[in-house]
Amino acid sequence: MSSSRRASCGLDLCSATDLRNSLHMASEAGFDFICLSIVHPRFKRELIGGKSKNRTGAFTRSDLILSSSDWNNLIVGKLSPYLAVDSEDTHFRRQSEEALNQELMYAAHLCLPAVMVTLRGPKNTNLARILQSKFQSNSTYQVWVHVFMESPAITAMQQRSDMNESEIALEKKKNDTWHWWNSFRSVCNFDKKLGLALEVSPDIPPDEVVSRWAGEPLKCLVLPTSLFLTNKKGYPVLSRPHQALIRSLASLDVQIVISGNDKHGNIRYYHQYMDHIWQTISHVDPLTVYARGYEDYLQCPLQPLMDNLESQTYEIFEKDPVKYTEYQRAIYSVLLDKISLEEKDQKVLIVMVVGAGRGPLVRAALNASQKADRKIKVYAVEKNPNAVVTLEAQQEEMWGDQVTVISCDMRDWEAPEKADILVSELLGSFGDNELSPECLDGVQKFLKDDGVSIPASYTSYLCPLQSSKLYNEVRLCKEKDKHPLHHFETPYVVHLQNRLELAPVQPLFRFDHPNRDEIIDNRRYKCLNFKISQDCVLHGFSGFFDSILYKDINLSILPETHSKGMFSWFPIFFPIREPIHLKAGDILEVHFWRLCNRKNVWYEWCVTSPVPGPLHNPNGRSYTIGL
Amino acid sequence: MSSSRRASCGLDLCSATDLRNSLHMASEAGFDFICLSIVHPRFKRELIGGKSKNRTGAFTRSDLILSSSDWNNLIVGKLSPYLAVDSEDTHFRRQSEEALNQELMYAAHLCLPAVMVTLRGPKNTNLARILQSKFQSNSTYQVWVHVFMESPAITAMQQRSDMNESEIALEKKKNDTWHWWNSFRSVCNFDKKLGLALEVSPDIPPDEVVSRWAGEPLKCLVLPTSLFLTNKKGYPVLSRPHQALIRSLASLDVQIVISGNDKHGNIRYYHQYMDHIWQTISHVDPLTVYARGYEDYLQCPLQPLMDNLESQTYEIFEKDPVKYTEYQRAIYSVLLDKISLEEKDQKVLIVMVVGAGRGPLVRAALNASQKADRKIKVYAVEKNPNAVVTLEAQQEEMWGDQVTVISCDMRDWEAPEKADILVSELLGSFGDNELSPECLDGVQKFLKDDGVSIPASYTSYLCPLQSSKLYNEVRLCKEKDKHPLHHFETPYVVHLQNRLELAPVQPLFRFDHPNRDEIIDNRRYKCLNFKISQDCVLHGFSGFFDSILYKDINLSILPETHSKGMFSWFPIFFPIREPIHLKAGDILEVHFWRLCNRKNVWYEWCVTSPVPGPLHNPNGRSYTIGL
Repeated sequence: MSSSRRASCGLDLCSATDLRNSLHMASEAGFDFICLSIVHPRFKRELIGGKSKNRTGAFTRSDLILSSSDWNNLIVGKLSPYLAVDSEDTHFRRQSEEALNQELMYAAHLCLPAVMVTLRGPKNTNLARILQSKFQSNSTYQVWVHVFMESPAITAMQQRSDMNESEIALEKKKNDTWHWWNSFRSVCNFDKKLGLALEVSPDIPPDEVVSRWAGEPLKCLVLPTSLFLTNKKGYPVLSRPHQALIRSLASLDVQIVISGNDKHGNIRYYHQYMDHIWQTISHVDPLTVYARGYEDYLQCPLQPLMDNLESQTYEIFEKDPVKYTEYQRAIYSVLLDKISLEEKDQKVLIVMVVGAGRGPLVRAALNASQKADRKIKVYAVEKNPNAVVTLEAQQEEMWGDQVTVISCDMRDWEAPEKADILVSELLGSFGDNELSPECLDGVQKFLKDDGVSIPASYTSYLCPLQSSKLYNEVRLCKEKDKHPLHHFETPYVVHLQNRLELAPVQPLFRFDHPNRDEIIDNRRYKCLNFKISQDCVLHGFSGFFDSILYKDINLSILPETHSKGMFSWFPIFFPIREPIHLKAGDILEVHFWRLCNRKNVWYEWCVTSPVPGPLHNPNGRSYTIGL
Repeated sequence: MSSSRRASCGLDLCSATDLRNSLHMASEAGFDFICLSIVHPRFKRELIGGKSKNRTGAFTRSDLILSSSDWNNLIVGKLSPYLAVDSEDTHFRRQSEEALNQELMYAAHLCLPAVMVTLRGPKNTNLARILQSKFQSNSTYQVWVHVFMESPAITAMQQRSDMNESEIALEKKKNDTWHWWNSFRSVCNFDKKLGLALEVSPDIPPDEVVSRWAGEPLKCLVLPTSLFLTNKKGYPVLSRPHQALIRSLASLDVQIVISGNDKHGNIRYYHQYMDHIWQTISHVDPLTVYARGYEDYLQCPLQPLMDNLESQTYEIFEKDPVKYTEYQRAIYSVLLDKISLEEKDQKVLIVMVVGAGRGPLVRAALNASQKADRKIKVYAVEKNPNAVVTLEAQQEEMWGDQVTVISCDMRDWEAPEKADILVSELLGSFGDNELSPECLDGVQKFLKDDGVSIPASYTSYLCPLQSSKLYNEVRLCKEKDKHPLHHFETPYVVHLQNRLELAPVQPLFRFDHPNRDEIIDNRRYKCLNFKISQDCVLHGFSGFFDSILYKDINLSILPETHSKGMFSWFPIFFPIREPIHLKAGDILEVHFWRLCNRKNVWYEWCVTSPVPGPLHNPNGRSYTIGL
C-alpha cells in the first residue's frame, strides 16, 4: 500500500510548441512529469520513400532546450505513432525500424527515465524484439507499454449476431488488449524494465478483466480528460465506478497520466481531483500498516527449529493484536471444559507451553487461568537459551512457582509428569512448514490420554497466481554457489500485492494433534485441480493456512477468512520455473508432496495439466527445512 | 544408422525358477541379456496390511547367485507389477512406495544396467517423482519405461458409436500411451537416463503414431512371441508390416526384447530371425556411410570467414561425389549460353572463383571449359594462405597461365578486370549462415552487368522438430563462462536421426546474386505458421537450404529433394529454451530474424503461438557469425 497521500501525476502533452513553457505550466499546475513525443511532430521524417540518411537538418529539437536533470526526471518520451515496425510492407517496416532506433537512441542520449509506446494491434513481435535488444544492451530507460483497458472492438462485438461462437472467441482474442500485452511481454521475457500504462476506458470492463490487469506490472493509469464529468461547481470529477476503479488500483503504487484537452478551464483541477481521491483512501487495517514497505518483498521462511530467533523478531510477533487473544480464549475454553465449578479449588491442570519463546503463551495461559478462575501449573519449555533468559527473569519477578522454565529442545525433554494441555505456536505461513507436526509428535508422549493440544489441527491451502512482479523478484534471487534452479524451487514468505488469483483457494495438507495413528507418518501427497476462468499466466502458487486452536476458535490467514488485524503471518509463495500460459476453461492440475528423511523435511511440486511440467525441488535439492 | 549387422537381443523371463540355469540357456540361444523381476515373485511381500518392516527373512534372492559382472551386464531388472504408488488409497500407496524403494535400492546394490517399469494407466506422477529423485541422487541404472505402442482401448474406441466427438477425444487422450509416457518424462524433466521400451502391438497404429514414437529415446522394442507367425518350415517369422516397422526403427540403434512363451520349439529361432532382419537392412547410400557415427551429434557450425579451415576439412568436402559435378554442369551450361559455336575460338570468358580453397571449383571450371570446348581465364581468389599454397602448386604444375591465383580476402581484392562468371561455394547448412550474401555483395562490383553468379540464389527452410535426444544433447552444451542460456540460443549442425518432424518444411529467407537493389540489405524477418497434426512436443527447428546454381541445376539438402549422395552438409538445428507441448490442430507460429551490425551477423527466433515465448539470442548475445 502506498504510504503517500498524494497522487504522482503526469501530464500528456499532445503537442508542445514551446517545451520550456509547457513544462513550466505543468509544473505550476502541480504535475510531477510530462509525457512528450521524443521526435517533435514538426520534424516528422519522410518515412515512406527516400533514404532518411540523406536528409539534412536535425530530426528533432535540441537537448539544450532543457537541463539534463529536467530530461532525466521530468520527461517521459513518447514514440512516434506512425512507426510500424510490424508492417507487412518490408520497405515501410525497414524505414520504421530505422526511425524507431533513432528515437530510442535519442531517448538514451537524453537519459529519459521512461519511453512510452502504444500497442495498436495484436502484432507487435518485431517491436518487442527491438525493445528487448535495447534491454539487453543496458538501456537505462523503462518502457511503458500503453494499452487500452479494453479494446472498443470487444465492446462492439457483444452486440454482433452475425458471428458464431468460435468466430467471436477468435475475434475477441485478437482484439483483447491483454493478449497484445501478454504476447509483447512474453517475447521480452517478462523483462522488469517493462511496465504498463493502462488507459482507462469509458465503460469499465468486467471485474475479472480489471483484476487481471491488477496482476500486471502497472506503472500508470492514463486518464483522458474526456473521462471526467463536471460537478455543480464546474470542477472535473469522475463517476463513482471510475473512482472505485482508481482506488482499487492505487494500492499498487500506480501513477496517473492525464491526457487530452483541458475541458475544465485549468489542468490544475484534474491533478487536484486525483489528490482528493488519494486522500480518501483509508489506511486503518493494522495488517496494512504493519506490512507497509513489505509489498511483494520476498523473504526466506524462518527456520526457528534450526536457527534461534532474534530478540527483535520475538518483539514484533509478540505485538500481534489477535493471535495471543485467541490462544487465551482457547485455553480459557479448555479450562472451563476440563474443570467444573465444583472442582475449581482442588483440581490443577498441567499446561505445557512448548516453544515458549519469551513467554507470550505463558502469559496467555496465566491470564486465561485467572479469568476462568481455574488453577493451572505451567511448564514453559524453550530451546533457545537466549529466550530462556527472558523467561527466567519473568519467572523470578512475576510468575513464581506456578511456572517452571525448562531450557531444553521439546523433542529431548523428559517431562516429570503428563500434561492436560499442550500449547504451542509452531505454525508457519503454510501451517506445517516450520515442522510443527514433527515437534508435537515428539512431545505428545507427555500428554494425558484425554489431553488437549492447542492448536488441535491446521490445514495448508493453495491458490494459483499470476504475477510478473513476483516472477521477476524470484529471478533476482539467483545465487552463484547454489543449484541453478534453486531460486525457482524455494518457497518465499511475501506480502502479496501485485498479483492475480487464478482460482479459489483449496485445502492441501491437514495435521491433527495429538496424532493417535499407529504409525505416525507426516509425509503427504495431494493432487489439486483448479478450474481456470480466463486466459492468464501462471507464475506460481500462494500458500496459506488456517488452524483450529480449540473447538470454534480459529486462526486463519486465508484471504476469505483472515483473522482480522492479525499480522504474524504473510502468505507463502511457491514459484514455478517457467511461466505457463493458461486458457479459459483449462483445468490446472498440480501435485504437492511433503517429504521427510531423518534430517530434513521439504516440499516437491509439479504441474501436470494442461501441460505436464518438471518436478520442482526433487530430493529437496534446492530447499529443505532442517529437523 | 547402426553399423552392426546383428540385433542386440534380450529375453524377458516371466519366471526363472533357477536363475543361473535360465541365464545359461538364454546365453546359449544367443541372447545378449535377460529381463527379470528384481524381486522374485516367490518373495512377494505382504503389501496390503501389516508393516513390511516387521517381516522376517529376505525379500528376494541373494546377490551371490550370479557374479557381479553378470548382474552388471546381463540383467535388466523389472519392477513388480503390483506396485501402485499412484493409488488413491493412501495406505496402499505408502506400502507400494516402500516396496518400490526397496526394489530400486536392490537394483542399485546389484548395479543393474537398467530397470524396467511398465506404465499401466495415465496416472504416474508419483512414480515419476520417485524415479526422478533417484536420478537426482546419482542412481547408476537407466530406466526403461515399458509402454504399449497403442493401447487396446484406443483400437476398441474406433468402433464405439455411443460417444460424441469430445468424449472420444478425451477418452483417447486418457488412453493414449504416448500421453502416459509424455507426462511421465515431463515430470522427470526429460532426464536422459529415461528410455523407452516400446511393446509392438498386433495391429500397427497409423504412420504418424509410429513416427512420433521414432522421435522418442527408444531403447528397445518388446516383441511378444504371440506376434510371430509360423512359416512353412515351422520357424517364427513376422508379418510384412511388422518387418517393415522394425526395419524402420532399427536405424535408431534399438535393441529387441523377446517376451512371452516359446511357441516354436526353441527360443533361439526368435533371435536368429531378428538377426536375419538386421542383415537385410541395406546401407548403400553414400551419405549414410559418410554420416556413420555422427547421428544426432551436435557440431558448432563452421565459421570459414573468421577461421581458416584445416587441410583435412578441405579433403573431406572435396570428396563429395555430387557437389562439384553439379558446379561443373552449371559452369558448362553458362559457357554454352554465353559463347556461341561461332565465337568459341575467339571469345574468352573471365571466371572468378571466390573462396577457391584448395581448388575444386577451379578444376570444375577447367573441366567444364574443356568439355564445352569454350575458352576461359580463371582467377582463383582465396584468403586462407595455407590453402593458397595448394593452389599455387597446382597452378605451377598443371594449370599454367590459364589460372591466376590471388591470395586475398575477396572483399578487399581489387580485380584487374570484370568477370563473366562469379563462382563461389560459401553456403552453410542454412544457406546464408556462412555469410555468402555479405561476401558476394563485396565482389559483385567486379561482375559485368550481364555477368552470372553461380550460385544464382539460395533459400533457407525451417521445420519444427520433436526430439528429446537433441534437447538433452543441447542441455549438455552448457558452458561455465558463457551466458547461462547460450547453449539454447546457438544453432548446431547435426545429422538428424532420433526426431519427429512436426509439419512439412517451409521456405524462410532467400538471397539472389548478383544483388541489384539500390540499397543492399541482407537483414531478413519472417513469420512462419505450421499446422500441427497430432499432440507432440516442440524442442526446436531443423534448418535446410536449397540453391539454384544456374537455371535448373540445383543443390538441395531438403529431406524431400535432397541431392542424392551429396554429403557436404548436414542440417542445422535451432533449439528452444524449454520444450513446448503442442496439440493437434494448433498453429505453431515462429518468427525468425537475420540481423547484422558492422562486425557480425546473427539469427534471433521466437515462438509466439500457440503460446507466446521469449526471444532467443537477442542482440546475438549467445551466437554470432563474424564478418
